[in-house]
Amino acid sequence: MKQKGKLIGIGVGPGDSELLTVKAVKILEKIPVICSPKSSKKKESIALSIIKPILEKREKSSPSKENSKKGSIRGLKILEPIFPMTEDKNTLEKHWDYASDLIAKNLNKGLDVAFITLGDPSIYSTFSYVQKRLKNSYEIEMVPGINSFTACASSIGKPLVEKDEILMVIPKIDDRLEKLLKEGNSFVLMKTSRNTEELEDIIHNQDCEKEITSVQNCSMENEKIIDSFPKNKPYLTTTIVKLKK
Amino acid sequence: MKQKGKLIGIGVGPGDSELLTVKAVKILEKIPVICSPKSSKKKESIALSIIKPILEKREKSSPSKENSKKGSIRGLKILEPIFPMTEDKNTLEKHWDYASDLIAKNLNKGLDVAFITLGDPSIYSTFSYVQKRLKNSYEIEMVPGINSFTACASSIGKPLVEKDEILMVIPKIDDRLEKLLKEGNSFVLMKTSRNTEELEDIIHNQDCEKEITSVQNCSMENEKIIDSFPKNKPYLTTTIVKLKK
Repeated sequence: MKQKGKLIGIGVGPGDSELLTVKAVKILEKIPVICSPKSSKKKESIALSIIKPILEKREKSSPSKENSKKGSIRGLKILEPIFPMTEDKNTLEKHWDYASDLIAKNLNKGLDVAFITLGDPSIYSTFSYVQKRLKNSYEIEMVPGINSFTACASSIGKPLVEKDEILMVIPKIDDRLEKLLKEGNSFVLMKTSRNTEELEDIIHNQDCEKEITSVQNCSMENEKIIDSFPKNKPYLTTTIVKLKK
Repeated sequence: MKQKGKLIGIGVGPGDSELLTVKAVKILEKIPVICSPKSSKKKESIALSIIKPILEKREKSSPSKENSKKGSIRGLKILEPIFPMTEDKNTLEKHWDYASDLIAKNLNKGLDVAFITLGDPSIYSTFSYVQKRLKNSYEIEMVPGINSFTACASSIGKPLVEKDEILMVIPKIDDRLEKLLKEGNSFVLMKTSRNTEELEDIIHNQDCEKEITSVQNCSMENEKIIDSFPKNKPYLTTTIVKLKK
């Protein structure tokens, strides 16, 4: 029987292709299958755009054949299942199942598959849904990536946490926030675009010195750093709040 | 007047040289001065050992001269100031001042200096002490690195946080811990070696399902993964606690 392929979850970092790790580059230069979910048929995934320099290098070293598909790279298959931007659990589960089946088909052929994910595969990554479905049947490896919040701190040019400060990473605001603000020092609010004015008021009302900085499209060409919360909020916005107690 | 050099704080990741970013490698292949603090005269710094493959490559391409110092690399100066393992503030300040002066001397000569730091320069990094002292006089850049806790999650092969879970990174245990355990989901206890049995008891006594995993020397050749808290605790030990609520 043919040996099954290995699934590798690869964090491609926040946006700048140079923030890929050497390990990620080496794998992506050779792997036969890359899986890069996207939110809709029309939109290219950000993760795929980050690894574009590697794909272009592979394309150049792949001699074109007259009957090959335009833009295809010899020895590379790119899977782009849809992971829609919805909170409906049934819809999501259906798409994750489909993507996992698609990956499994390739693994069964003995092909290794790299699942690329923005940032790091262990931090709020869609990789975990596929990982759960396939972990009992296939070998799985994870390659860590630069996560958005440390990249944001680097762009801002300030430490995120020092000495005995506690760092909290909060993906979605709920009623735990007010309690947490009392105990922590540095707060990363992921996907600021989902936050409400109510949240901003809670933070502004904290009775201590505070530093609020937001980064949009971190490490990309259109990166923007804003003191305080931004008025308009693209998808890739992260806010760092530091409370001085 | 000669233009001043730039200080670049570079995160070299958790241990595996392949977890350096492409950006870090490109800078370290050319920079004229590397600053790598170490805890004592006798011990080599871990950060410096991580970038060894780059230094070896530079050494090979540097033609040896009869009168050059053994092991020296042409066009590269390595500064190794001592940052002692003490909590005495006066002693520490003195060493940070000395290191900052040493770096400043090189920046004043127009040389760029890379300050290398384990993990990421924004997360509990000694880089911040030098950064504070030099930021008003020199251009400073930060290059993010893979931090220990996402690398640990990759080694364990499990997500750190999913969906709306809150991540807390705790460098040193104090009386906030019990409150935080109530509100968070995933907890990273950095430098487990400093933890006491008391802490372990507090966590074991949480009234919910829990997963406790420790990683020693993450991503290095002697990496070790332990279910629960480890009995013996080398310096580079991180514990991940997940509470299922």
